[in-house]
Amino acid sequence: MPDFAEPLQRLINEFKHLPGIGQKSAQRLAFHVLRTARADAERLAQALYDVKDKLGLCKVCNNISESDLCVFCRDPQRDQTTICVVEEPNNILGIETTRQFSGLYHVLHGSLSPLRAVGPEQLKIKGLVERVGTGVVEELILATNPTVEGEATAVYLSRLLKPLGVKVTRIAMGIPVGSDIEFADEVTIWKSLEGRREM
Amino acid sequence: MPDFAEPLQRLINEFKHLPGIGQKSAQRLAFHVLRTARADAERLAQALYDVKDKLGLCKVCNNISESDLCVFCRDPQRDQTTICVVEEPNNILGIETTRQFSGLYHVLHGSLSPLRAVGPEQLKIKGLVERVGTGVVEELILATNPTVEGEATAVYLSRLLKPLGVKVTRIAMGIPVGSDIEFADEVTIWKSLEGRREM
Repeated sequence: MPDFAEPLQRLINEFKHLPGIGQKSAQRLAFHVLRTARADAERLAQALYDVKDKLGLCKVCNNISESDLCVFCRDPQRDQTTICVVEEPNNILGIETTRQFSGLYHVLHGSLSPLRAVGPEQLKIKGLVERVGTGVVEELILATNPTVEGEATAVYLSRLLKPLGVKVTRIAMGIPVGSDIEFADEVTIWKSLEGRREM
Repeated sequence: MPDFAEPLQRLINEFKHLPGIGQKSAQRLAFHVLRTARADAERLAQALYDVKDKLGLCKVCNNISESDLCVFCRDPQRDQTTICVVEEPNNILGIETTRQFSGLYHVLHGSLSPLRAVGPEQLKIKGLVERVGTGVVEELILATNPTVEGEATAVYLSRLLKPLGVKVTRIAMGIPVGSDIEFADEVTIWKSLEGRREM
């Protein structure tokens, strides 16, 4: 489309590369940028640079961090005996919003997937074995996704780490709270029956 | 939320300032930026700067432009006798996609609104009067939005410019194509009756 001035068209194209942003949204965002003050656009641009330049991975748990240790690993208040294992850094947020977990995390940065040629050596598993090996950790909560890959990863980690003498648990799968059994798929219902607890 | 590293939190906040982007979308976008190559983030940041630094308004029609004259005003193929008046630069795109209009444009950059204290002097009307005054323009198509403000603007422009001897027309309002009369509001149905044409 040659109807837009080149810089505007380029901004639209760049917005379109972001997930969930189509042509119409990209246009709306670009025209918004056009209308706002230069300082606003500048802050967004600078934030983009900073995220790429100032962030790395925590040396202990592989969470996103500005320094060698992430906010959780450098917090002495966190329970050092429990580690929650997640696939991606953004999974931590979901768990933190519950305010029910005060332990540490370990981010695998993916899940086992033969189809996508992701084996154990592509995941951050070596560091986890080392952490469990120190003897401080008592429980490992496997919070990988309830998908084929997440399940396979949980099973693999369980077999690998149980022999080190740590308690390994898996998050519960079942009917989402506020939902209706009517709308749950058969595997979810099966998992919710399997995981039933006495009241 | 102190759970995110500062640069990441800052990028999330900046994304949230964009229209239609809430907390969840902003997080998804920021984590996407985190995962992609630095070059990708850089291109988006640079495009943001360029849109603010390289674009201005066309001296004739006030459309967004890289140079003194926008793509339409410097195109000798466009019909110089017809001007389509729109509220915002992005309205031009909608009209261009029809491929049914080959004239020039005039962007008002707003519409008359006593409530928001926007009077004629806040809009780009002076230049329009000058353009009509040259005598080249034969028809002025008022394509302001079918809202109270857009209508008021159209009525104002019609009264102002008709005395200069130019034909002033208003875009049709009616039932959208592919829609159902059942779902149209009463004002739209009234407008569609009023604008009926013999078949």
